Amino acid sequence: MTATTNSKPIRIGVVGATGYTGVELLRLLARHPSAELAVVTSRGEAGTAVADLFPSLRGAVDAVFREPDPDVLGECDVVFFATPHGVAHAMAGALLERGVRVIDLSADFRIRDPELWAHWYGQAHGAPEYLDEAVYGLPEIHRDRIRSARLIAVPGCYPTAVTLGVLPLLEQGLVDPADVIADAKSGVSGAGRKAHVGGLFAEVQENFRAYAAGGHRHWPEIHQTLSGVVGGEVGLIFQPHLVPMTRGIHATLYLRPRQAETDWQTCFEQRYANEPFVDVLPPGSHPETASVRGTNRCRVAVARPPHSDRLVVLSVIDNLVKGAAGQAVQNMNLMFDCPEDEGLRELAVFP
Amino acid sequence: MTATTNSKPIRIGVVGATGYTGVELLRLLARHPSAELAVVTSRGEAGTAVADLFPSLRGAVDAVFREPDPDVLGECDVVFFATPHGVAHAMAGALLERGVRVIDLSADFRIRDPELWAHWYGQAHGAPEYLDEAVYGLPEIHRDRIRSARLIAVPGCYPTAVTLGVLPLLEQGLVDPADVIADAKSGVSGAGRKAHVGGLFAEVQENFRAYAAGGHRHWPEIHQTLSGVVGGEVGLIFQPHLVPMTRGIHATLYLRPRQAETDWQTCFEQRYANEPFVDVLPPGSHPETASVRGTNRCRVAVARPPHSDRLVVLSVIDNLVKGAAGQAVQNMNLMFDCPEDEGLRELAVFP
Amino acid sequence: MTATTNSKPIRIGVVGATGYTGVELLRLLARHPSAELAVVTSRGEAGTAVADLFPSLRGAVDAVFREPDPDVLGECDVVFFATPHGVAHAMAGALLERGVRVIDLSADFRIRDPELWAHWYGQAHGAPEYLDEAVYGLPEIHRDRIRSARLIAVPGCYPTAVTLGVLPLLEQGLVDPADVIADAKSGVSGAGRKAHVGGLFAEVQENFRAYAAGGHRHWPEIHQTLSGVVGGEVGLIFQPHLVPMTRGIHATLYLRPRQAETDWQTCFEQRYANEPFVDVLPPGSHPETASVRGTNRCRVAVARPPHSDRLVVLSVIDNLVKGAAGQAVQNMNLMFDCPEDEGLRELAVFP
Amino acid sequence: MTATTNSKPIRIGVVGATGYTGVELLRLLARHPSAELAVVTSRGEAGTAVADLFPSLRGAVDAVFREPDPDVLGECDVVFFATPHGVAHAMAGALLERGVRVIDLSADFRIRDPELWAHWYGQAHGAPEYLDEAVYGLPEIHRDRIRSARLIAVPGCYPTAVTLGVLPLLEQGLVDPADVIADAKSGVSGAGRKAHVGGLFAEVQENFRAYAAGGHRHWPEIHQTLSGVVGGEVGLIFQPHLVPMTRGIHATLYLRPRQAETDWQTCFEQRYANEPFVDVLPPGSHPETASVRGTNRCRVAVARPPHSDRLVVLSVIDNLVKGAAGQAVQNMNLMFDCPEDEGLRELAVFP
Repeated sequence: MTATTNSKPIRIGVVGATGYTGVELLRLLARHPSAELAVVTSRGEAGTAVADLFPSLRGAVDAVFREPDPDVLGECDVVFFATPHGVAHAMAGALLERGVRVIDLSADFRIRDPELWAHWYGQAHGAPEYLDEAVYGLPEIHRDRIRSARLIAVPGCYPTAVTLGVLPLLEQGLVDPADVIADAKSGVSGAGRKAHVGGLFAEVQENFRAYAAGGHRHWPEIHQTLSGVVGGEVGLIFQPHLVPMTRGIHATLYLRPRQAETDWQTCFEQRYANEPFVDVLPPGSHPETASVRGTNRCRVAVARPPHSDRLVVLSVIDNLVKGAAGQAVQNMNLMFDCPEDEGLRELAVFP
Repeated sequence: MTATTNSKPIRIGVVGATGYTGVELLRLLARHPSAELAVVTSRGEAGTAVADLFPSLRGAVDAVFREPDPDVLGECDVVFFATPHGVAHAMAGALLERGVRVIDLSADFRIRDPELWAHWYGQAHGAPEYLDEAVYGLPEIHRDRIRSARLIAVPGCYPTAVTLGVLPLLEQGLVDPADVIADAKSGVSGAGRKAHVGGLFAEVQENFRAYAAGGHRHWPEIHQTLSGVVGGEVGLIFQPHLVPMTRGIHATLYLRPRQAETDWQTCFEQRYANEPFVDVLPPGSHPETASVRGTNRCRVAVARPPHSDRLVVLSVIDNLVKGAAGQAVQNMNLMFDCPEDEGLRELAVFP
Repeated sequence: MTATTNSKPIRIGVVGATGYTGVELLRLLARHPSAELAVVTSRGEAGTAVADLFPSLRGAVDAVFREPDPDVLGECDVVFFATPHGVAHAMAGALLERGVRVIDLSADFRIRDPELWAHWYGQAHGAPEYLDEAVYGLPEIHRDRIRSARLIAVPGCYPTAVTLGVLPLLEQGLVDPADVIADAKSGVSGAGRKAHVGGLFAEVQENFRAYAAGGHRHWPEIHQTLSGVVGGEVGLIFQPHLVPMTRGIHATLYLRPRQAETDWQTCFEQRYANEPFVDVLPPGSHPETASVRGTNRCRVAVARPPHSDRLVVLSVIDNLVKGAAGQAVQNMNLMFDCPEDEGLRELAVFP
Repeated sequence: MTATTNSKPIRIGVVGATGYTGVELLRLLARHPSAELAVVTSRGEAGTAVADLFPSLRGAVDAVFREPDPDVLGECDVVFFATPHGVAHAMAGALLERGVRVIDLSADFRIRDPELWAHWYGQAHGAPEYLDEAVYGLPEIHRDRIRSARLIAVPGCYPTAVTLGVLPLLEQGLVDPADVIADAKSGVSGAGRKAHVGGLFAEVQENFRAYAAGGHRHWPEIHQTLSGVVGGEVGLIFQPHLVPMTRGIHATLYLRPRQAETDWQTCFEQRYANEPFVDVLPPGSHPETASVRGTNRCRVAVARPPHSDRLVVLSVIDNLVKGAAGQAVQNMNLMFDCPEDEGLRELAVFP
């Protein structure tokens, strides 16, 4: 677990790179100066050239999808899982035993309580023995633990946007933890690249709707994180919505201040002063998802609604970058002593 | 003010029909069996054929825009204002004096307190003498007063979606009126048809953001309506957002029940059982804006978020129809003894 | 095959109404004053209420999907097929024998040569014995034959847009039939409502591409129609493209005039003077797909490119209306002596 | 005019960086390892921080817009013009005299004949004395001349896509130069960032249309370039269309081969074998605009339509990158001895 220097590339495996999270990870790794893309696996696409499936990678990624094989993957320094839940449960152990570090972008190791995980994901937890050492890979909270971790659970997209929006306030006890309302809106790439009628263009375009009003799997994850921050129970409402766009999450947070006269702006600015990927906007701003598209950045703004004693926080990320692949690379950078923003300095393509 | 029967068409004037609300009104009136489109005015487009500006109306509207002239408009049975605020202030009086009924789609007569109006709209109220008789044209609340009104203030788009979502609960005292949170999302046609950089396709597409976090003009309107419903002060947060789509509003309402064990579903179904344009969805539903696009319908659903004592209501309308032109026609139907849904029976074009 | 008057509703069956063409057909029929929606079938959704699958139809369609049964369908006056190819082959005969008229929106009876059909559709033709009496349901060419037809093959979407754009010129021999280039662009609803990765919002949004450069099934259909018009072989290039929008087809036609000095505008205007659904725009116009969205209208314009001896024709339709369901209803109106535009008078919802 | 090495940064001025081409140029230059953004000018926004206008540049560009001043700009090594036509006419001379090299992204120096320019742009040419030395900055044709040029006319977006699609065929005389048809489709960012009703989201979304059927300013530019390639007159039809998306151009080219049995694929592959930014797709491919979004790449494919003796070429670029800002940086790299793809290696963000 000694740190790798830039002089020797990090040998990387990616398991399950046929989804949107996977292709985004390949895009970032293909341009990361310390990364060597050694193995890319997919059961369904074994034998296909990666660039044939994703023409945007032509000329930059010459790998061919292969069947996942622990022995081959075992020669990597780190393996990313960009898979549906359950897969990392089944494979992570064999890799860890071979000395490979694991960065799991799926939900497999995010929830610390295996019973709770089983309740929300509808199947038994497949690797509870690794839960103790799994580190929840939100650098803004767990940076030091990430550096030395063997197994990272990359946070979900909604949890990242919501947590970064409320973190300074909860840490300092400035808002009531019993009354957190998170109204969240996401582009549709969060639903993944599987064929389903609800994801068709004609169903999504010119349409807006809520979903999972009866409960969403990111609720227990956010609840766990925020409860950890305050050291106690948090009262949370989390309502997601689907936006007719491909990328981006906007979380609108309604919070009840404990005292009226706080300088909220300074609270946010101080907390995130040294964070490379959290940008606190000036008072009166409204962060736009387009301003972070394709980047690992989170932009937040805090506002006071008129004639109210509430606080409103607006938080935006790109769900596939800071909400998935970019955050995974940020974790890798920390784990392998690279500059934290290496390979993550691109600016949003606007418009 | 005697009612017109269907046998004699209603002679109609439309002032300011060059915006999105205006063209939608023309679309509806052109197919309304009792309507005769007598005069269409626009200062900027006088002399232009309406169908040259809006090719979608070719073959159905042969009117030519003309300068607004009170004497010409004075021969109408009813005049619609689809104008920026201030215009109806200046012209409504002259029409009312000539015996013409007025349906104002702008904000000019929505706020009952002229000082409050002046505060939010940045100019003195231009016709406070007509505020007493102006009727807020939400049929679900003021149907009887609308029938005999001379002057209608058609509700704003957000106020319509929010009010219909919370009306049954506030009327019956089932939720705390001091704690109403309305997180609202709108398509961009609500910003109108004027040229502005922020409305360009390249600025809106693949982008989501909040706006007016410091206060929006629909806040006092919603606040006034809800306070009227409960007969007292309402505590309201209203936060609007811009969705990369043309039409549709989705309001997500967070409410605090006064008692836990209420049958919310039945409460909504009973309240709206006889309303022709409010459709209560079955439990577990998520109304979609696409399902009401181009129609005068509002669809609502009520849900209980997990591990919470709050109530969430989801409410959708088409901002240009039930939120503007369609509701205006619904008012006209009531005022002129037409079937309330005449000219408003079209189904949403899906997909 | 006697004509039904408006006093007695037309009893209608719809087979396979779970796709986009099907729901569009139901939308139109639900508001058609002479139509009675008697039977709606779907093998996959039997038992489901139509309005549960398509919330836009709530309150207007109370039918429940049932298994297709020739005896039940046999009691209808007319049965529409909104099915994949092959289904009408299998069922049309049984209905025709029961005296039911058939309007087939699929490709089953469009190609007159069963071998050619088999070549392009990859399976043997299932009902060649009905090809002789099948009428190609383009009213602008075959209006009289449609009135008395038992079996209608509703034209494809591209063929409708292309044919109406070139018809006046070919009929009068004004352009070279050996050199017709049709560059066509379509919204994605044309691909139907089946789940497929290529139709996902994230794959379509902000993307434009050609497809089927090696040959598209609408080529033989257009070729057959145009060859029929000129009474000889037509040289045709047809290249379709996918536009990131839901509805609409735009055909750009490049033609070689036989003589330079023709009044093309008058040629189009005279040919379509009495056509209820073809609108010739003034010189210098560019028809927009949005202006026909949701309507049965085709809008065309003719132009001369600079420094060239070619002619360019621009032709737009809504692929699901004039390109499918609306044209089907137009055929029904002709077959049952209804006014040709009955149930088809709606204006485009703009914006 | 000696080359700058990477050790000393290139001092850069950007005139008129408030449009979409300008912000794209700033995005690329901000991450270019050899570039130093010394001066950014705008008359309208002087005094505004660049990152306040374009939040996507926060943290990467700390420049403030200033009035354009030839003396200040005169201290740069190179000045880019991202301005409406006419501005570079007025200012380029003063800079060239001060020894500054000029890369003009506008149309000012693209057309070699000042009378022709005046005809299409509606005003007299403002700097005809520099036309002789201006180099048309398409590296695939003029690479060597670009290296030593003082004044570059960056090609237009459509001309880039069309020229690269037809270049190998015309150079080798394989198609008839008298019969070139270019049907081109563009995202709306090409129309720029000025407020205009036609560019509003509600006008563009779910809409497709042709424009400039009577003649487009890129016609003489393409005509000049292709005529230069063949050394004679070219017969060209160029018809542009507007696609409801922000970025991307797709050109569909219809060409008449001089002999049937040519290996078109090899012709393209050999011509572009050493071009860093032109990617020839395998036979049967359809290039997608999304695969080049945000990148400087052009992707082309060649196809034979069925039953035809024509050739179809499909060519895609990002109009703001290879069609504007990226090509400008590619020119700068050549002029200052940087690797040709420096600062241009990013991959398309997909989806």
